Amino acid sequence: MSESLERYEAEKQENYQARFNKLQISLEEDDIKGFREDFLDMHTYEQASFFREQPVELRRWIYGYLSPAEFAEIIESMDFEETLEYFTEMDPQYSGAIMTELPVDDAVDILSLLEKDEVASFLTLMDQESAEEIKLLLNYEEKTAGSIMTTEFIALYDTQTVEQVMKLLKEEAPDAEMIYYLYVVDEAKKIVGVLSIRDLIVSDYDALIKDVMSEWVITVSAGKNQEEVAQLFMDYDFLAVPVVDFQNHLIGIITVDDILDVVDEEASEDYSKLAGVADGEHHTDTPFEAAKKRLPWLIILLFLGLFTASLIGQFEETLEQVAVLAIFIPLIAGMAGNTGTQSLAVAVRGLATGNFGKQGKFKWLLRELGTGMITGGVSGVILAIVIFIWQQNLVLGLLVGVSIFASLIVATIAGAFIPILMDRLKIDPAVASGPFITTLNDITSILIYFGMATSFMSYLV
Amino acid sequence: MSESLERYEAEKQENYQARFNKLQISLEEDDIKGFREDFLDMHTYEQASFFREQPVELRRWIYGYLSPAEFAEIIESMDFEETLEYFTEMDPQYSGAIMTELPVDDAVDILSLLEKDEVASFLTLMDQESAEEIKLLLNYEEKTAGSIMTTEFIALYDTQTVEQVMKLLKEEAPDAEMIYYLYVVDEAKKIVGVLSIRDLIVSDYDALIKDVMSEWVITVSAGKNQEEVAQLFMDYDFLAVPVVDFQNHLIGIITVDDILDVVDEEASEDYSKLAGVADGEHHTDTPFEAAKKRLPWLIILLFLGLFTASLIGQFEETLEQVAVLAIFIPLIAGMAGNTGTQSLAVAVRGLATGNFGKQGKFKWLLRELGTGMITGGVSGVILAIVIFIWQQNLVLGLLVGVSIFASLIVATIAGAFIPILMDRLKIDPAVASGPFITTLNDITSILIYFGMATSFMSYLV
Repeated sequence: MSESLERYEAEKQENYQARFNKLQISLEEDDIKGFREDFLDMHTYEQASFFREQPVELRRWIYGYLSPAEFAEIIESMDFEETLEYFTEMDPQYSGAIMTELPVDDAVDILSLLEKDEVASFLTLMDQESAEEIKLLLNYEEKTAGSIMTTEFIALYDTQTVEQVMKLLKEEAPDAEMIYYLYVVDEAKKIVGVLSIRDLIVSDYDALIKDVMSEWVITVSAGKNQEEVAQLFMDYDFLAVPVVDFQNHLIGIITVDDILDVVDEEASEDYSKLAGVADGEHHTDTPFEAAKKRLPWLIILLFLGLFTASLIGQFEETLEQVAVLAIFIPLIAGMAGNTGTQSLAVAVRGLATGNFGKQGKFKWLLRELGTGMITGGVSGVILAIVIFIWQQNLVLGLLVGVSIFASLIVATIAGAFIPILMDRLKIDPAVASGPFITTLNDITSILIYFGMATSFMSYLV
Repeated sequence: MSESLERYEAEKQENYQARFNKLQISLEEDDIKGFREDFLDMHTYEQASFFREQPVELRRWIYGYLSPAEFAEIIESMDFEETLEYFTEMDPQYSGAIMTELPVDDAVDILSLLEKDEVASFLTLMDQESAEEIKLLLNYEEKTAGSIMTTEFIALYDTQTVEQVMKLLKEEAPDAEMIYYLYVVDEAKKIVGVLSIRDLIVSDYDALIKDVMSEWVITVSAGKNQEEVAQLFMDYDFLAVPVVDFQNHLIGIITVDDILDVVDEEASEDYSKLAGVADGEHHTDTPFEAAKKRLPWLIILLFLGLFTASLIGQFEETLEQVAVLAIFIPLIAGMAGNTGTQSLAVAVRGLATGNFGKQGKFKWLLRELGTGMITGGVSGVILAIVIFIWQQNLVLGLLVGVSIFASLIVATIAGAFIPILMDRLKIDPAVASGPFITTLNDITSILIYFGMATSFMSYLV
């Protein structure tokens, strides 16, 4: 960062601080009017930052200062896990009213974090119409288009005129989540077209919607996986897509801001799985919480490691005769583990972006066989030569070289095959996480190495 | 996927195929009018899919059928690396005209893939005004707000009325990249406010912009890192943000569709680095290309592995006396490697999302020390007990247990410290990739293990 950029950022920071200090004073002096004036002038994200810094007593005052609709906007900008604590602090009527004011997709996300009976009691506190909509949405499976869509959208009929629609927008725009794309339906509520606000603005006021809309609408069905929906947004640069049921009825829309969260969430999940960390680990966790989340994997690995140890134990006689064999264990296991992780990562990314076709997966495995033969061949030849020169032992060099050749081929194919198999079994391929593949490849590579060493023992001693 | 969802998707697929077949016939029969009618009716993403399937001769025909403006829209929806091939097939005048028609941010992205002299020759083929804008943007460093912004935006003055702005939009909407947020500037072009189309639509026609706009605008400076800009979009649910220079002059805007690509690109980069795969690896690469991209890491690891081997070699005497020591090498190295990857992953995610403050980093290392002590302690005790029972050797059990305890502490701290150090040195912390940390921790854990074994040798034999 250049110095002037740093200064610029620092000035912006001071600006924030001054605003916050002024607000803090109004709040502590119980100056409702002054507080509301400054507070409501800020973006909801800043409102949330300020609110979050307050102790529980002052948070309770803030609930009293703001209408449920005003507070709902703050909730919207928060991480929903975080909001659960605040809901418990509120008067039940107030929290029910907030739930009613929230965009339905957000209300559903929050409710899906709660136990069934808590959800039921929330629903009784809410406006009946909203409660019905939410019940409907709660039925969609997690991580599908249905679960991230909102039902607050504006639908038009193709027989309306541009002018009528502009008037309609004037009335409905404040409530709808997305007004930049408008979806057009026929009398049976089946989707027949789409038009953007841009199309609307550049059209004559008396033109018919049917003449200015595009009939070529991309829709997603409610059961579609959210990751595939995200891919669609990236391919088409959409700001929203309509969600339809099997009869092509428009039942909701998904907006780009939710997709941004999906992309971030899915990427972070894949990343965590590759590293063998529970996705829920947060930097504010205490050491105990963090350890509790990491230990399950470590204990699985511990027992896999003991299994590997018992396998090597089978070769103890070999080891006692040729102790030098032991020094290459980390090299062979490490390289096999890393090769497997490489091919795993490429396969998981490929599956996530839907880049393989049906035949593509078999072709992919063949390609990985080729890649493994090349990386294994190159590494094997280098190792054989280096070890021959270093240890003055041709047989040992050949043994390690050939073991690496075979191990890298097996590891490369395993790294590609396992996620593809999991995908076929409809399990998220990212579950075949890094530590698992690494340990699996540790074991096979050591078996190859010691198996060969034992067979050629007579040449080694 | 339920059966009806599969049928629904299959029907959609057939629909596409029918369209494509019809187009293919028009193209092969050189039926320009029929081709244009069907082709231009499709979304540009489908246009690109169709175009991509054609052999080079037919692609040349398509260039002849479409205006540069029409083809520019197809280019926009493609992966820019891919487009380089097509540009070389075109008549230079045609490619220059396409470059002129492209949104400037996209043109800049494509040109930044080329060599300097190629860029210069492209710029001479372009409309002068566009060429100047592009030259300006090419000056911004890669991965900064400046490099992903577009200069095609609509700026308003605060003294205009809503009606005037609606008229202006009617004229300018077709060219501007984003019309959903409008930024308001004063006479000196400094940014003073923002309003959304939504605000505009619900306002009276004769209201003044200054009265309907919000004065609280979030801006980013042109030098800001694109990852931080993406975080801002996620926090605030923006569709666009204005980019300003140090004097707060509005110089461009960044739109959410580009941010979606940034989030995806950065996540995929971090993921690839964790797995030690070059980011450029693509599923269409041949085995040779894939191997070429993976081998650099593998060869580094190979020599690090040889170094580890030579370290263990120092303890050959110890090994010869107590061969059973060798069987726990993979377990100790593997667990240390995985623990390090876990804390690395959490630290890299934390740094990427800017979740640590300045003091936060030191507190973070302390937390990781605590986490390492707990995970190490638990794993150490389990191992000591299991090995004592299995091998009937208390000293061996204690040796492995204590080694794991010490190794996991070191590995956990190393995994957290190295990315933080890199961040401080202004290096992307994700560069401290998985294989590197894993191998480093292999080495330290083995040194701890054999160092302790050698010291307590007299109790082991």
